[in-house]
Amino acid sequence: TTMDYSTNDSKPTSEKKVVAVVGGGLVGALNACYFAKRGFQVEVFESREDIRQAKIVKGRSINLALSHRGRQALKQVGMEDTIVSKGIPMHSRMVHSLNGTQSPIPYGKKGQYILSVDRANLNKELLSAAETYPNTKLNFAHKLLDWSTETGAMTFVRAEGAKEEIQADLIVGCDGAFSAIRKQFLRQSRFNYSQTYIPHGYLELTMPPINGEFAMKPNYLHIWPRNTFMMIALPNLDKTFTCTLFMPFEEFEKVTTGDQVIKFFQKYFPDAIPLIGAEALKRDYFHLPAQAMVSVKCSPYHLGDKCVLMGDAAHAVVPFYGQGMNAGFEDCLVFNEIMDQLNEDFSAVLPEYTRVRVPDDHAIADLAMYNYVEMRAHVNSKWFLFRKYVDNFLHIIMPRTIIPLYTMVTFTRTRYHKAVKRWHWQDKVINQGLLFCAAVSVAGGSYLLVRYPPNMPNIPMEKLWPRLQALKSPF
Amino acid sequence: TTMDYSTNDSKPTSEKKVVAVVGGGLVGALNACYFAKRGFQVEVFESREDIRQAKIVKGRSINLALSHRGRQALKQVGMEDTIVSKGIPMHSRMVHSLNGTQSPIPYGKKGQYILSVDRANLNKELLSAAETYPNTKLNFAHKLLDWSTETGAMTFVRAEGAKEEIQADLIVGCDGAFSAIRKQFLRQSRFNYSQTYIPHGYLELTMPPINGEFAMKPNYLHIWPRNTFMMIALPNLDKTFTCTLFMPFEEFEKVTTGDQVIKFFQKYFPDAIPLIGAEALKRDYFHLPAQAMVSVKCSPYHLGDKCVLMGDAAHAVVPFYGQGMNAGFEDCLVFNEIMDQLNEDFSAVLPEYTRVRVPDDHAIADLAMYNYVEMRAHVNSKWFLFRKYVDNFLHIIMPRTIIPLYTMVTFTRTRYHKAVKRWHWQDKVINQGLLFCAAVSVAGGSYLLVRYPPNMPNIPMEKLWPRLQALKSPF
Repeated sequence: TTMDYSTNDSKPTSEKKVVAVVGGGLVGALNACYFAKRGFQVEVFESREDIRQAKIVKGRSINLALSHRGRQALKQVGMEDTIVSKGIPMHSRMVHSLNGTQSPIPYGKKGQYILSVDRANLNKELLSAAETYPNTKLNFAHKLLDWSTETGAMTFVRAEGAKEEIQADLIVGCDGAFSAIRKQFLRQSRFNYSQTYIPHGYLELTMPPINGEFAMKPNYLHIWPRNTFMMIALPNLDKTFTCTLFMPFEEFEKVTTGDQVIKFFQKYFPDAIPLIGAEALKRDYFHLPAQAMVSVKCSPYHLGDKCVLMGDAAHAVVPFYGQGMNAGFEDCLVFNEIMDQLNEDFSAVLPEYTRVRVPDDHAIADLAMYNYVEMRAHVNSKWFLFRKYVDNFLHIIMPRTIIPLYTMVTFTRTRYHKAVKRWHWQDKVINQGLLFCAAVSVAGGSYLLVRYPPNMPNIPMEKLWPRLQALKSPF
Repeated sequence: TTMDYSTNDSKPTSEKKVVAVVGGGLVGALNACYFAKRGFQVEVFESREDIRQAKIVKGRSINLALSHRGRQALKQVGMEDTIVSKGIPMHSRMVHSLNGTQSPIPYGKKGQYILSVDRANLNKELLSAAETYPNTKLNFAHKLLDWSTETGAMTFVRAEGAKEEIQADLIVGCDGAFSAIRKQFLRQSRFNYSQTYIPHGYLELTMPPINGEFAMKPNYLHIWPRNTFMMIALPNLDKTFTCTLFMPFEEFEKVTTGDQVIKFFQKYFPDAIPLIGAEALKRDYFHLPAQAMVSVKCSPYHLGDKCVLMGDAAHAVVPFYGQGMNAGFEDCLVFNEIMDQLNEDFSAVLPEYTRVRVPDDHAIADLAMYNYVEMRAHVNSKWFLFRKYVDNFLHIIMPRTIIPLYTMVTFTRTRYHKAVKRWHWQDKVINQGLLFCAAVSVAGGSYLLVRYPPNMPNIPMEKLWPRLQALKSPF
């Protein structure tokens, strides 16, 4: 069958142009709302079945951290309140040390928090929101076979094998880290592309409720930092926690029996064993193989005036800054702002979107990778932990001059690449300040040491240390 | 038609295994010689016609600089002397300044030189050498359609449209920067890949002989360094020079008429106009559009025990270190060494090749890119030029301790990544030494200035400067 949705000159432009959104995941569904709100004829094509009907959704992570950028993007299409009402606020990290003590580390100032949201529910809500627009059609079980960069003609294969041809004025590729749309970009000359797999994999485990209540304090992102190993847990509405274990693949390969799992947890995460349950742990650990994590960067994001990439299709990031979904949602918002500025002229909007968005997406991809590397390399250095403390302290006394990087990324819409620039500047200033303080202290201390007899207080280093240790976590 | 060349148990292993070399370019043809010499049944598949029969070979550069690594690889299959006899030695760079003065800068010590070789001739010689082995078959006009990573079954399309199925024990992907073989690697999980286009393009021009003689001194690589622009010229056996102009694409776009070409050359390369000829320049400049340059890195280089990538397919590099072909040829040599060590057991040889070769190929790709960036960013810094001078001087007085990076890369088989490591170490030592000398000089100078009245010689800075300027060139 052949459908032709292309331009019909009798209607005003924005009403008649066809926008094909490829991918009905989080970013695709949100994008459908944005384009529908503008009056375009929106066709969403998703290769899987409708997750609102499907029983099992496998693959992707179960829950995600929603923060300021994502919320602002949802707000623009009136979805913020609905989603926030089903999220669980996390005001602090809760760091689990090896001996079982738990130390909370706030994410920001009072009132600043991130939200644990259920991926499947968020996706369903966004699909349903898109469907409320009469000018939107959702096409499930449509797998992209091929598309033309010249004409925008696309061929899909349906579940039963039938082929369908569609003509779009704009193709929006939101089909994730392994994007089928992006394959055409790779055939173009002067398309820059990189995909980098990290040596770590991840695995998810469920921590059930105990007597109908959360097994741990709910309003926290729980974290067990163990250098190369790490586990985190985010709360769900059903009072379970989803635990995610990050570990090098070569370590995963060493754990092959239930008993080895228990031994491994006894060594690194002993307090989690009774909470997950030894039997469930032995079983669920082997439910799925460890999943790979990839960082994808590319440029440009557009092909002529026909196609644009957003979300993971444009920039899959490793999950160590909690910004993957937020960056993808902000893509939609930024594109929408440029559509306003340039009057929906695709031939101007698309290059401008590439120009504006590439440096920001590359910055967050690099930051997430930096956090992954840093977590292992620097996190045990006392200097690093001391500097994190100093930064937070300075932010309290000079809130406009010194803003911790985490705050800029998570609680503002400061452009990612500007946040990184400012961070480097702050870093230089603070290091110079500390050097100056150190010089003054040495000079002054030498004087005082001579002038007055020493009578040092007993500094409770062992009390300070757990809190410093806790700062290990990038989350 | 279906051919089955797969293992036949009646013959000794090395005689019966089928090695399919995909790509009949420089690295593919050399590899055919290596595998044929070992007694494998070698099938070379090249998508183009046999260049020994074809009239016009378009695309790729016309000549190349052959240096130590490439020669060592040719030597192993007895081809060094044949190729070297048809190459033109270049002992020095010849730097053309804007005012027309020419300054030679030797590549290394006396007797060290690189060779200008004709790409087409080199390719033809290697193909003919491969064909002298009775266990080698060259298949031209065979375009790879698909292949199986599981079974090694490959499907080719012939020029006339017929399909051909072939089964190989080992597939060697030598099909260049846009490798068709590599596409299967991209579909595997945990395959790291990047392709980066640089903003510069290149364009080739011919400088004809004058009165039957070379228009410029032949035993030099002529170079016109002009910061963001650059032109080089390599001599050919027919007494022409092939000039290559490197320039950002956006600058190429500004030059659209013959008169603009002449104006541009008058401004930047005035001495080249009469040598190329104004009319030829106006015409040939527009013969082909400026060509893009890409840097490709990936890892791993192998897929199970079935397939391995070599040459540009594994690591296309930008041409600013003159090592593209040399690195590709050294790939064959390194693979051959590992075949000796591990007794031709593909399941051991392939992972070992990845382990050994990836860091070296990534190092030369990075070095070539570094030279591209440096050429524009640091080359005008006096400190940089001074340091190059110091390095060369130190090499002369301490030949075993301080070896310039260019020498290690071009005139030795020091592993690329070790050369880079040593370079960083030398750099640190030399900088510290210079700092120490400066401190001693300041102290000593202050003393002398007080002790004896100053009577400074007239330093001929303007005489020293052109030679320093000349060091701009990465070639």
